[in-house]
Amino acid sequence: MAIQVAVIGAAGYAGEELLRILTRHHQADVAIITSRKYAGQPVSTVFPRFTGSDLKFSAPDVNQIAKTCDIVFLALPHGLAAEYAIPLLKSGLKVIDISADFRLKSPEKYKEYYQEDHPAVELLSEAVYGMPERYREQIKSAKLIACPGCYPTSSILPTAPLLEAGLVSPDGIVVSSMSGVSGTGRKVELPYIFSECNESLRAYGTVAHRHLPEIEQEMALAAGLDREIAINFLPHLVPVNRGINSTILLDANEGCTLGKIAEAYEKAYANEQFVRVLGAKKFSDTKYVTMTNCCEIGYNIDPHTNKVILTSAIDNLTKGASGQAVQCMNIIFGFEESEGLI
Amino acid sequence: MAIQVAVIGAAGYAGEELLRILTRHHQADVAIITSRKYAGQPVSTVFPRFTGSDLKFSAPDVNQIAKTCDIVFLALPHGLAAEYAIPLLKSGLKVIDISADFRLKSPEKYKEYYQEDHPAVELLSEAVYGMPERYREQIKSAKLIACPGCYPTSSILPTAPLLEAGLVSPDGIVVSSMSGVSGTGRKVELPYIFSECNESLRAYGTVAHRHLPEIEQEMALAAGLDREIAINFLPHLVPVNRGINSTILLDANEGCTLGKIAEAYEKAYANEQFVRVLGAKKFSDTKYVTMTNCCEIGYNIDPHTNKVILTSAIDNLTKGASGQAVQCMNIIFGFEESEGLI
Amino acid sequence: MAIQVAVIGAAGYAGEELLRILTRHHQADVAIITSRKYAGQPVSTVFPRFTGSDLKFSAPDVNQIAKTCDIVFLALPHGLAAEYAIPLLKSGLKVIDISADFRLKSPEKYKEYYQEDHPAVELLSEAVYGMPERYREQIKSAKLIACPGCYPTSSILPTAPLLEAGLVSPDGIVVSSMSGVSGTGRKVELPYIFSECNESLRAYGTVAHRHLPEIEQEMALAAGLDREIAINFLPHLVPVNRGINSTILLDANEGCTLGKIAEAYEKAYANEQFVRVLGAKKFSDTKYVTMTNCCEIGYNIDPHTNKVILTSAIDNLTKGASGQAVQCMNIIFGFEESEGLI
Amino acid sequence: MAIQVAVIGAAGYAGEELLRILTRHHQADVAIITSRKYAGQPVSTVFPRFTGSDLKFSAPDVNQIAKTCDIVFLALPHGLAAEYAIPLLKSGLKVIDISADFRLKSPEKYKEYYQEDHPAVELLSEAVYGMPERYREQIKSAKLIACPGCYPTSSILPTAPLLEAGLVSPDGIVVSSMSGVSGTGRKVELPYIFSECNESLRAYGTVAHRHLPEIEQEMALAAGLDREIAINFLPHLVPVNRGINSTILLDANEGCTLGKIAEAYEKAYANEQFVRVLGAKKFSDTKYVTMTNCCEIGYNIDPHTNKVILTSAIDNLTKGASGQAVQCMNIIFGFEESEGLI
Repeated sequence: MAIQVAVIGAAGYAGEELLRILTRHHQADVAIITSRKYAGQPVSTVFPRFTGSDLKFSAPDVNQIAKTCDIVFLALPHGLAAEYAIPLLKSGLKVIDISADFRLKSPEKYKEYYQEDHPAVELLSEAVYGMPERYREQIKSAKLIACPGCYPTSSILPTAPLLEAGLVSPDGIVVSSMSGVSGTGRKVELPYIFSECNESLRAYGTVAHRHLPEIEQEMALAAGLDREIAINFLPHLVPVNRGINSTILLDANEGCTLGKIAEAYEKAYANEQFVRVLGAKKFSDTKYVTMTNCCEIGYNIDPHTNKVILTSAIDNLTKGASGQAVQCMNIIFGFEESEGLI
Repeated sequence: MAIQVAVIGAAGYAGEELLRILTRHHQADVAIITSRKYAGQPVSTVFPRFTGSDLKFSAPDVNQIAKTCDIVFLALPHGLAAEYAIPLLKSGLKVIDISADFRLKSPEKYKEYYQEDHPAVELLSEAVYGMPERYREQIKSAKLIACPGCYPTSSILPTAPLLEAGLVSPDGIVVSSMSGVSGTGRKVELPYIFSECNESLRAYGTVAHRHLPEIEQEMALAAGLDREIAINFLPHLVPVNRGINSTILLDANEGCTLGKIAEAYEKAYANEQFVRVLGAKKFSDTKYVTMTNCCEIGYNIDPHTNKVILTSAIDNLTKGASGQAVQCMNIIFGFEESEGLI
Repeated sequence: MAIQVAVIGAAGYAGEELLRILTRHHQADVAIITSRKYAGQPVSTVFPRFTGSDLKFSAPDVNQIAKTCDIVFLALPHGLAAEYAIPLLKSGLKVIDISADFRLKSPEKYKEYYQEDHPAVELLSEAVYGMPERYREQIKSAKLIACPGCYPTSSILPTAPLLEAGLVSPDGIVVSSMSGVSGTGRKVELPYIFSECNESLRAYGTVAHRHLPEIEQEMALAAGLDREIAINFLPHLVPVNRGINSTILLDANEGCTLGKIAEAYEKAYANEQFVRVLGAKKFSDTKYVTMTNCCEIGYNIDPHTNKVILTSAIDNLTKGASGQAVQCMNIIFGFEESEGLI
Repeated sequence: MAIQVAVIGAAGYAGEELLRILTRHHQADVAIITSRKYAGQPVSTVFPRFTGSDLKFSAPDVNQIAKTCDIVFLALPHGLAAEYAIPLLKSGLKVIDISADFRLKSPEKYKEYYQEDHPAVELLSEAVYGMPERYREQIKSAKLIACPGCYPTSSILPTAPLLEAGLVSPDGIVVSSMSGVSGTGRKVELPYIFSECNESLRAYGTVAHRHLPEIEQEMALAAGLDREIAINFLPHLVPVNRGINSTILLDANEGCTLGKIAEAYEKAYANEQFVRVLGAKKFSDTKYVTMTNCCEIGYNIDPHTNKVILTSAIDNLTKGASGQAVQCMNIIFGFEESEGLI
């Protein structure tokens, strides 16, 4: 019998992508979708692609969800997840949070980057970072999953194996990323209307972007450090709907060769169906990963500066959000890890 | 009376942009446009926007050009400029080369990056790098102008004043750029067809790109060094027609502040009508510079890594090619520098 | 000495385009730009491309404008033009209205399509429809210009000469148009954010679109009818910034041939510098007219249905709005008609 | 056990889409993919999204396919299908042709529109038009399926039920369509490079397009006529990757109301999972159907011209080609009709 799923905050793009994926999932039924704004309206009012579905948005009702469901996805703006996570975890549901609320282990970092006290410090140690390629074992028994951010997913997956293998330095890392506009969510603001984004190339948030401490935390962990590292993360907004491409520059350690890099990836990802290592001197391209849960990785060494140059591509809404969230759900419930995702 | 202009290799995008600009220039007449492929055909066959014009493509005829014209623009693939430049310079014409052939002062670097011996080493010392904001005096009396590349224009303009002022280190510079597809020219190749470029984000040429030695040459000069520097230049292809945005990361020297940066730009560009310094914590955006000859510059300091972060935007075909070329022509002939360009 | 210009409602896309054009106009100075929302702020706050300009938005002050200016452009939402037009006309200024308020000669039609009583019926007979290719003589002495809508411009210019020549029937006309998103203005609404428009093709307003009665009025006039005609106008929204392409289907009258069509266009447009007739079996393409004041026209006859098929392309913001408005201004003041427009 | 599938001509976009769909199909294995150009190379050389797959392109070998496979998809340019279809049908394989070769029942029409004699007239009567919503019963027992063209799919599905119900006239129909650039295939030609298509809107082929007789044939059949009808089909090329939107104008017959239209669709499509009737006064949007096998339909009546206006949206590569082809395969083999398609 299928598990019963609730999606809280289902009216944004991450919610739409979750519904798209769960609709084709054979072992999960979407029982409840919530949106205060659209409560009472059929899902097709917001997402015409689901015309014909009986699903309706309702106002979030924790008791109702606890009674009905096995798992809940939180697709809310940051700061709001705790309100739902605490009672639902108590009721025994599994909680997968797609927001940023449980990604950082340090409440101080959370406050520094989000300008608010963390709303549920006690849950931070319990939360598992929902990146299956790095934390599959912990995910299996997790109750609360903190789904990685889109930029962090695109930069940690290619970088971590090389840091673990000691092939590159954890210091002086530069991550230059380009993101499609759906990464800003379904925000109705002037900078995101079509005529302002189309034929426009621009950087933004190059200092203190909220995904930065998450990237630094996971890269330091991959390098086995118990000190902080400082990274330059340079996000750019470009006129595509979906997709993130990251180009990552790292200092090569002595002995780092293309062959060693290939080995490190082989060791890390040989059995991963959602990581596609393209090989040396190849470049990732978002067009091959959008609408999939895959991360594509290319690599090279620049002998003239002794830098390792990585490129990676993901779909920000799939592997960078809802797809990875479902991948975690599949692991937790012992389903095929790719169920609903291919 | 208007000067007479020839454009050799006029059937590409740089040629089209030259014609667009020269058509509105009040002191220059386009007398001859050449294209072996389209010889005999009216300009409107290739560029319907010029329907109604009497201009026809002809096969290039150096004698005819020498007799008729005052100045010639070379808009050819690299390696071919010398064949025309040598006789035309001898005939007393001014030559503005939009290709890469005379940008590098070192024939060894040319060979390293272009895999061919330089076709006219004797002209290298004579050629003036056609970036008015940095070489206006030399341009005034130049006979041969080497028009800067598009990526170099977008990275040298924001960086040079800070290097000159000693505010940033010339070592360890990273330039991460995004370019519209017209930057590849009017090439009919699979990677550049619409369905392969649209909704695609990808890096390319991150090692040994041909614009790299030009950037390194000019940044070293700006820093007053007589040694080489090594830069990481990371170009990306993104789905817009026109525009380059560069994000540049530099180590801040001691004493570098936002105020000092503002001063350095004020000193360099206060009187430059084609450089628009946006100010601290602002970001350049290609949509405000496409179809213009402007370069937009924003800047910031990341205290957490002690890096200066610059962003710049240009139109690759205008300030990055044909517009800058006309700006040089205007300087050479003593016209208003903005004639035809606004 | 240059004439003094005011732009009321300058903070939208038509306003930006007006400023872009007037900035390069040698005989007109922009003296006043108004915007209630941005009053007090420099023009560059809204339009970074004008960084460096001293212009500031002010709240609209009719007395001040009357004292200072020779002409005023109204770039307001429909329904608001009369409030400014009435006193400014009394003060002797020329008024060019870019909105829809004075385009329809019939106040009943205005009410039918705009659901409001016309705010200044007495001005309707005085207003001249600002399409120079058809009303140049009237424009010369006009006090109040009603600038044509973008869709009407794109459909009337290709159609009128054939109707006048009796080559096609005024009945059963179909106009199928595609417009770039800037045609919706600078509206911050969900349907116009990037992720909703990009990779989206959709019709809208196929019944009772507000541009329909304007098209019908002018086509009936061109056909010399004093009865109404009924047209099917099918607008579509497509992911480009600028440009309208219209494909127009008309019943060929007896004797209509490609040669006769060519003659009709020759007669109508041989001396028009902003109409580019491409010829038989050619198709207009917006990419050759965007950022210009041109209208491109192609034509063909389908023998299998006996229909004439016209295609036309304009830039909705230039020939479809602000460019055509400046063209009218040039005619009124006796300037070169193309001043500022090439 | 899974059926074995061959794809002949797999290196184009229809081939890529077939592979994308078949990869997730649980009852079909792709055994053979052919491409003369890429014979011997792994599928990932052409389509990096299949990196990791063992599939290789081979030169087409009819005997090998006959021995190994149960069904073959032909994704070849028109004119080439017969060469493979004849021997493979003889060997007992099912053949699904995605090209145009078997769509027209009349060899004369084929010659008129394709300028060649039909290569296998004897197969025309045997071929079943592969549109499940209209020919499901025939498809069940068909040996040779002629997969409908993309434009015909987008125009026949919305129109046929109204013609069948007698609500609209079969005469004077106008179909105005917009297509994404993938509709031109993976053609490396100047008009299809990015810079020529992006920010470009243009009509093409408005007279005698090759999809026209197919549309006319099926609409006449739906209307129950045994005479020919003449339609105006107006295709446009617009800058999106995937998707066709068609706006269709038909003369309303007496008694045609929105309610009657709703009934006709209810009757035709109530049980169709890949047709989504949006309802009265709604407009189809390609963004809700791309990467799906759905056709979206909206409708309205224009009382001012007495026309029915239909809009429809499909993905040209899915419902307009490979998705519909797999839907036919599913019907033939008795699989769930949606297998691989959601």
